[in-house]
Amino acid sequence: MASEKGKVAIIGSGLIGKSWSVLFCRAGYEVYLYDIDEKQVSNALSGILESLQELEGKGLLKNSKITSAQEAHKLVHGCSDIAEAIEGAIYIQENTPENVDIKKKVFVNLDNLVKNDDTILASSTSCIVPSRFTETLKHRKQCIVAHPVNPPHYVPLVEIVPAPWTESSVVERTRAIMKDIGQAPVTLNKEVNGFLLNRIQYAIIMEGWRLVEDGVCSPEDVDTVMSKGLGLRYSFMGPFETMHMNAGGILDYCEKYGSNIEKICEEQGESRQLHDSNTAQVVHDAMCNASVPVEKLEERRTWRDKRLAALAVHQAGQED
Amino acid sequence: MASEKGKVAIIGSGLIGKSWSVLFCRAGYEVYLYDIDEKQVSNALSGILESLQELEGKGLLKNSKITSAQEAHKLVHGCSDIAEAIEGAIYIQENTPENVDIKKKVFVNLDNLVKNDDTILASSTSCIVPSRFTETLKHRKQCIVAHPVNPPHYVPLVEIVPAPWTESSVVERTRAIMKDIGQAPVTLNKEVNGFLLNRIQYAIIMEGWRLVEDGVCSPEDVDTVMSKGLGLRYSFMGPFETMHMNAGGILDYCEKYGSNIEKICEEQGESRQLHDSNTAQVVHDAMCNASVPVEKLEERRTWRDKRLAALAVHQAGQED
Repeated sequence: MASEKGKVAIIGSGLIGKSWSVLFCRAGYEVYLYDIDEKQVSNALSGILESLQELEGKGLLKNSKITSAQEAHKLVHGCSDIAEAIEGAIYIQENTPENVDIKKKVFVNLDNLVKNDDTILASSTSCIVPSRFTETLKHRKQCIVAHPVNPPHYVPLVEIVPAPWTESSVVERTRAIMKDIGQAPVTLNKEVNGFLLNRIQYAIIMEGWRLVEDGVCSPEDVDTVMSKGLGLRYSFMGPFETMHMNAGGILDYCEKYGSNIEKICEEQGESRQLHDSNTAQVVHDAMCNASVPVEKLEERRTWRDKRLAALAVHQAGQED
Repeated sequence: MASEKGKVAIIGSGLIGKSWSVLFCRAGYEVYLYDIDEKQVSNALSGILESLQELEGKGLLKNSKITSAQEAHKLVHGCSDIAEAIEGAIYIQENTPENVDIKKKVFVNLDNLVKNDDTILASSTSCIVPSRFTETLKHRKQCIVAHPVNPPHYVPLVEIVPAPWTESSVVERTRAIMKDIGQAPVTLNKEVNGFLLNRIQYAIIMEGWRLVEDGVCSPEDVDTVMSKGLGLRYSFMGPFETMHMNAGGILDYCEKYGSNIEKICEEQGESRQLHDSNTAQVVHDAMCNASVPVEKLEERRTWRDKRLAALAVHQAGQED
């Protein structure tokens, strides 16, 4: 063992825990994958090897020192003793269910076991701000959220969310580790509900919802606007760079189109009800028809992941 | 001449007029490209040939009957007599500047010249609803907006916007023609400011703006959330299909996450000032640094179009 990159501990061997293990071992880190359930850990280890082999087959084992799936996989150790898993780890990534009481319990446990004052204690939570489960901990300055997107080996974004008491060096080191394993970190300067990705996603969903509810267009057409229009450029450039290029820079864009955009956004102020709404039924029926019925969702997810994988391979050959 | 697909007239030989000509001749339509300025028309004809050759080189001359750029180009005729251009056309696509008085003048002229009651009179406008420039016309039932996205041969979305008096058969025939030339039409059932694409784009811009203005994150990170996260799947699936798959269908998604989304969207009700704002300067400076300074925008647009072209080639090989 003793990888020069150091040791990381992954707490929880479900889908997200497995994905983190793949990313870390691919980059040459020694990985201890912990779960209470030994059987689940051993299943996870096979799943990790399969993912690594898939990446190898696609030419996406990026690290120069790790040249094969087998070699990367040797760096991953299953473990059902949490103290052993985190012993000497430079970075711990927690992946338990999205429940604040569970997070609190797990973090109290980690807080009691961790020995170093510079070990990073990161949570994968997608929606719970870190101040809600780290406030009373001895090591709270070392706690942070690092929220990945699924599947992380094809969608590199990681949202880094410090609590008010998280040390800035912990933020910087977490960002550096994320970049080192091939991910694209973004940092929140303060806690907000939904973090960044979901806030932007929800703004899109809500405008689509209003358009359908107000009878402007069909649910399918909302999707087409994205997948055959806006979304093509969004796969390699963001909304601000798009503005920058659609005029002579941002200032020129705001000068030319700003007041019109403000006026339209004023029409978008109203939040609509999603749950138990007639529109939910309309959108549901449209998606069952245009995409797949509920019983075929698993097949469609496989298709989605195949498309994301193919896009990652395509993008690996493009210049930024 | 006498292509079996019929004749179309393109009014205006700038960037958009040229793009429409490429799309129509590639699909086997006889194209009459009109402009007052004969020199500009002859320049446009060379530009159209170049675009066709580029598509040919990428294997994107999709039509089975048109097998070469040369063959498609032979279907395009430059023309400086508007009456000749529209004589016998089944479809006319107007591409003059985004000014309602100009649109009015051009449409009055077309209205006086057009002889058939089934010729479609379409405008490329991105922001002027058709009722504003077609109300008083004799042929107003035949008028419609067909708004393309730039560059249309790599971004297939077309927004179809009927006026209240547009005949439904005109909407249907416009959609059919758009599909026939390889585009992806969406239809507005009523006129709204910004149509669909810009309404969704502005909802995204405004949430990004609030996040930066409120000190939550940097402008670069807003872009990264899209280009390394959300935008990857949006290049082949829309926001509603994403919801459908991120739970057991739309109804299940709304049941599980609906109230939380509604709560977050209530925080997003406030429209911010874009023009003459301090945030505009912050975003501008960030983009000049992260993307390119204003004087290099043209190079960066070339890069963007290259990426869109490469993405189109990639997607042509993928299954839906």
